[in-house]
Amino acid sequence: MVANQDAKAAQAPVIETDNTAAVKAAIVSSEAPKTASLTHPLGPLTGEEIIKGADLVRSVWPEGTKLQFKVNTLHEPEKKLLAPWLVAERAGEKPAPLDRKAFIVYTLRGTHNVHEAVVNLTTQTVEFNAKLGPFEHPNSDMAELEEVEKAVLEIPEVKAEIEKLGLPEGAVVVMDPWIYGADGIKEGNFFDDKRVMQCNLYLRDPNNSSEEDSCHYSFPLPVSPVIDPATLELVRIDIMPTGHDETIKPFKYQDRPANEYIPEAHTMRTDLKPLQVVQPEGASFTVEPFSELGRTLKWQKWDFKVGFNQREGMVLYDVHYDNRPLFYRLSLSDMAIPYGDPRNPFHRKCAFDLGDVGAGLTANNLELGCDCLGSIYYISSVLGNAEGKPVDAPNVVCIHEQDSGILWKHTNYRTNRAVVVRNRELVLQSILTVSNYEYILAFIFNQAGDITYEVRATGILSTQPLDLDLTEVPHPFGTVVHPGVLGGFHQHFFSLRVDPMIGGHGNQIAYEEAEAMPRDPKLNPNGHGYIVKKTVIDTTGGYDLDPSKNRTFKILNPAVRNTVNKLPVGYKVHVPPFQPILADKDSYHYKRAEFADRSFYVTKYVDGELFAGGKYTNQSHGGKGVRSWAERKEDLTKEADPVLWVNFGINHVPRIEDFPVMPMEMLKVMLRPVNFFDKNPALDVPSSKQSFNCSTALNTADELAKKVDGLAVTGGEMKGCCA
Amino acid sequence: MVANQDAKAAQAPVIETDNTAAVKAAIVSSEAPKTASLTHPLGPLTGEEIIKGADLVRSVWPEGTKLQFKVNTLHEPEKKLLAPWLVAERAGEKPAPLDRKAFIVYTLRGTHNVHEAVVNLTTQTVEFNAKLGPFEHPNSDMAELEEVEKAVLEIPEVKAEIEKLGLPEGAVVVMDPWIYGADGIKEGNFFDDKRVMQCNLYLRDPNNSSEEDSCHYSFPLPVSPVIDPATLELVRIDIMPTGHDETIKPFKYQDRPANEYIPEAHTMRTDLKPLQVVQPEGASFTVEPFSELGRTLKWQKWDFKVGFNQREGMVLYDVHYDNRPLFYRLSLSDMAIPYGDPRNPFHRKCAFDLGDVGAGLTANNLELGCDCLGSIYYISSVLGNAEGKPVDAPNVVCIHEQDSGILWKHTNYRTNRAVVVRNRELVLQSILTVSNYEYILAFIFNQAGDITYEVRATGILSTQPLDLDLTEVPHPFGTVVHPGVLGGFHQHFFSLRVDPMIGGHGNQIAYEEAEAMPRDPKLNPNGHGYIVKKTVIDTTGGYDLDPSKNRTFKILNPAVRNTVNKLPVGYKVHVPPFQPILADKDSYHYKRAEFADRSFYVTKYVDGELFAGGKYTNQSHGGKGVRSWAERKEDLTKEADPVLWVNFGINHVPRIEDFPVMPMEMLKVMLRPVNFFDKNPALDVPSSKQSFNCSTALNTADELAKKVDGLAVTGGEMKGCCA
Repeated sequence: MVANQDAKAAQAPVIETDNTAAVKAAIVSSEAPKTASLTHPLGPLTGEEIIKGADLVRSVWPEGTKLQFKVNTLHEPEKKLLAPWLVAERAGEKPAPLDRKAFIVYTLRGTHNVHEAVVNLTTQTVEFNAKLGPFEHPNSDMAELEEVEKAVLEIPEVKAEIEKLGLPEGAVVVMDPWIYGADGIKEGNFFDDKRVMQCNLYLRDPNNSSEEDSCHYSFPLPVSPVIDPATLELVRIDIMPTGHDETIKPFKYQDRPANEYIPEAHTMRTDLKPLQVVQPEGASFTVEPFSELGRTLKWQKWDFKVGFNQREGMVLYDVHYDNRPLFYRLSLSDMAIPYGDPRNPFHRKCAFDLGDVGAGLTANNLELGCDCLGSIYYISSVLGNAEGKPVDAPNVVCIHEQDSGILWKHTNYRTNRAVVVRNRELVLQSILTVSNYEYILAFIFNQAGDITYEVRATGILSTQPLDLDLTEVPHPFGTVVHPGVLGGFHQHFFSLRVDPMIGGHGNQIAYEEAEAMPRDPKLNPNGHGYIVKKTVIDTTGGYDLDPSKNRTFKILNPAVRNTVNKLPVGYKVHVPPFQPILADKDSYHYKRAEFADRSFYVTKYVDGELFAGGKYTNQSHGGKGVRSWAERKEDLTKEADPVLWVNFGINHVPRIEDFPVMPMEMLKVMLRPVNFFDKNPALDVPSSKQSFNCSTALNTADELAKKVDGLAVTGGEMKGCCA
Repeated sequence: MVANQDAKAAQAPVIETDNTAAVKAAIVSSEAPKTASLTHPLGPLTGEEIIKGADLVRSVWPEGTKLQFKVNTLHEPEKKLLAPWLVAERAGEKPAPLDRKAFIVYTLRGTHNVHEAVVNLTTQTVEFNAKLGPFEHPNSDMAELEEVEKAVLEIPEVKAEIEKLGLPEGAVVVMDPWIYGADGIKEGNFFDDKRVMQCNLYLRDPNNSSEEDSCHYSFPLPVSPVIDPATLELVRIDIMPTGHDETIKPFKYQDRPANEYIPEAHTMRTDLKPLQVVQPEGASFTVEPFSELGRTLKWQKWDFKVGFNQREGMVLYDVHYDNRPLFYRLSLSDMAIPYGDPRNPFHRKCAFDLGDVGAGLTANNLELGCDCLGSIYYISSVLGNAEGKPVDAPNVVCIHEQDSGILWKHTNYRTNRAVVVRNRELVLQSILTVSNYEYILAFIFNQAGDITYEVRATGILSTQPLDLDLTEVPHPFGTVVHPGVLGGFHQHFFSLRVDPMIGGHGNQIAYEEAEAMPRDPKLNPNGHGYIVKKTVIDTTGGYDLDPSKNRTFKILNPAVRNTVNKLPVGYKVHVPPFQPILADKDSYHYKRAEFADRSFYVTKYVDGELFAGGKYTNQSHGGKGVRSWAERKEDLTKEADPVLWVNFGINHVPRIEDFPVMPMEMLKVMLRPVNFFDKNPALDVPSSKQSFNCSTALNTADELAKKVDGLAVTGGEMKGCCA
């Protein structure tokens, strides 16, 4: 997408394109480019830039055209410009700024005419502006969800359908709009060119209807309107089956208990004592701006840049350890949650929480002392709203240290001298609320060169209505989690995009497997021997784990050798295996969730290939994500620039303990150095000492002196070194 | 093993048995049984009891016979007595004490005549006393290791062999004795009836020979004496190959650098700031004695008993949540570390750290403020020494709370009200040093009914000598981790013994798998549907994970139903898959490490079947561990009393970062309730609040008020609610 730099060109007319071709339209403004004070190619768009980008897009439309902005986010520079720029920056050369660009997706308000554009904020030009094709729909956003809920509950046909349910007097109906998904079914269901939403209806506790935070998921209703969010018009109403098969029956509300998570509904435990994390000398990390909104983190030899955008939430760039390059870019690429109930309309439930809405858009405002513990630094950001105006995204990332037990220890049993080093970690955390579910996402660093990406799934199951008299009967498609409430089976898939530069650019992906040696009277007489075999991945494609072979994937730099043993420096990936997507290969779930079938995809770097499920996931039909890119079967051996997509997931067979809010389930990906350093990189971390740690012994003095037999201890403390 | 209760029987003579039969010998003492003040059947042996047990054993031998005690530990009562006893205790019925018994293994000092005995401390009788069979040898102990090291280095042939190495002037040789392992090879190697040890020799840094904590593993030597630890006589000297194949060459020491872990050898980082965990109101748990050495822990509805013994270290008994029964007994059953270098003598390296020595014997004395952080309660214990006398085992278990992030959260996006509950955990931790390696073992409880067993492997690789000029050449059997030092490939296997009573005794083991539905125009028209199938394990045997089916193992109680959905209450097991032992099925590694080939073994409960590798692992030949018990193929459907052995492991392909001490590698087993409660059991945990947590925001006030653009933040703190 090359800008037409001809400043004298007259304003070209907007060209409406057909669904299959993209046409560039370049508008050059007569305004001089603005010089930003802290300009950095990776800085998230500032409020000013958001406004300017929207204005540039408006300028290609007739005055007064009402546009609805869905995406207004940084368009990162091409790697061939940015990679050397970052090297020059690190070397202190102060390279000239790269053009600032924005990627903008917008609709003509009230229609499904959707465009994507790239605007150059530096030259004030529109470099690209094209209508999206079929099956390419923009994301939803929080404002839209609330707007749709309000409108739908007023629609007469919807009210009539609700009336039939026989709800109690004063009952308040609540509605969660959902992305529609896709099933390719025509005749009233087929929406190639129209984005719609399917709505899930629930009740607040009828005995407590004024409680706005009543857990409505405990009272699911079978009425599911389908609505056009652009016009707020009803398309149709689906009725959910409430038995064990696809039969639709009339549903008559019967009394059943509530199931609340708010503390007022419970008698709290009274025996939990405070636990505080205190850093009397402050935290060990430093945070500096590299742009108005971008932050550089330095901690224990790590340094990297943190960005934030509406789709990916936090993104890490230019990650180095001890000034040695490791990762060019790290980000959660997308997640997909396909459901396994085959019955209409449940079969269409498949959320792509990043592509369908956005990790940045749904990021919680993290509260001091609640979400993060200890000495916390908060990163705030700025996102664009539907009007093309900036909106604060406060406290979307919290950063803090934590202690995570012992990192390494050895005691020489002869002398009894123990050397202990504790595992201090740096955590960058963000939490998404996507309607019912929450995802707690964290990048975690330690002093041994490890990076962990941790996902905790919590929040509330998406519930389905169940005939009350089926509560005590095992259900074929889910678990009964409350009278009249089914938690349907579903899978969660996540894809971590790892763009590496271990020891510099030019990496190789390989895997190693351990293999038993055959018996041999000379070479392996006892049958105990085994060796390790390496396979280099030379072609893009999908790859799987195989625990039976200890198959371990590594990112290597064959041009950079370990100083001692001369093996290529590298990082290995620890990720748990998962059950691949159960939906069959011809299904829409499978086609759309392109990262849900293999533990790894390896592609060759292409600018803009950031999202494993494709750029537009909402009602997508697949074919534009990581599986498709990998299937190009490109050669990775020359001008190697691989991207590693690390996939992982959970098959969520709900248990009743997961309701009304689930105790978190955790998944971790770990990136660990392998022959990158010349020894344990944490040998120079000061040993764990009481004078530093100020722990407190709870044993009484008499107990410790063994004077008392059988003394109970309840919370009595001996003061440690810090009063 | 039934006691002969005839008090009038004269002292029977000791009957020497042959190797294949066990004969009971009962000696009844005329002394009256002692009444202990705090007697409990599960209390670890007290010092008095250790002495008494040893005396009882001595009493069956002629006066003056020198005995060496290898094991002197609690002999737990039979389950058919103990299980109802514990129920009665819990109900407040104060049941009559059960007889106190000790299990004792001892040798006639200076010989390989080994006996095992069971003595009744209450009746003062010897209930059982028999010579061990072939391939049944007792464990080593720390005193023996130091004795052997001292003696071997003085043996003339050994000194002569060391002389040939051409070590530098003043070099100090250090020796780690190892258990011998087994290979069935006759002609000088075959030791059915003799326990020997193989010794690994190393150097301290020759340039710093007086440093007692020099990391000698950086200087491995190829001379390996084999010694009889009973007589301290040399059996032979093995010479290790130092190249890539089995060729033995003369080894001439050449100068190479040291590789130290002690802090004096490094320039410490200076930028790590303290992080302290403070509990201003004390800890939330209570500890009470149930016997002189046994402790009852109560915390957040959990209550259980903690014991400690020389082999297993910490053991948990009678685990309840909210007074509902869960686990009868939880313990690490054994670990095995088979090595993969096929060359003599490395092929014999296979350590069973519990059976060969003991988790209790090797447990570290945990130091305040070093090994455990925060407000710590220490459990100390008492073990028996070779003289049959008690020795203090101080601070072998540390207990403390920790915060582990968020447990559950939900935000209603309409109201923005967030409810957050933090994941407070209770940790019981013990650390073993087994010569070079360390294992950090912990039981971790949380408020959602989960129990995690966590293993962290750290300490030092077992190193092998390598020709210096092969440092930069990839090695077939290991990784070069330092000039002249090979870290050989090896596997670590662990077996957690889970004796359940979920909802009471009478449990069932089952697994569930998720399975795609076939396409069907009516039942599954979209190909999205899947179901979950349960398989009950009705016969003892070995079972594997299968991530491709999401195979999840559960412990169920079919007689106790969930109050809402009527599914059987249960607990599920989360454990990672591992590469099974690579040694082939005819090998000694395979035969001996009976828990290293399957993720699960399910056996039918038998008293005394506690140790997955068999009761006697030292130089064992296999056939007496969990695989063999499971192969009895017993029916589990009647009088169900299954024991679940949860196996997990690491294939350790060393990386240079693992040397000289490895950053810990972590494995976890998680036991989680499934349909045991009627909802999330942590709904009544008070929400996370700043007033409770006292976190501190590091952002400056101006930053938070958005007055400053681009301000760097380095450790400046805003005071939270606690000064």
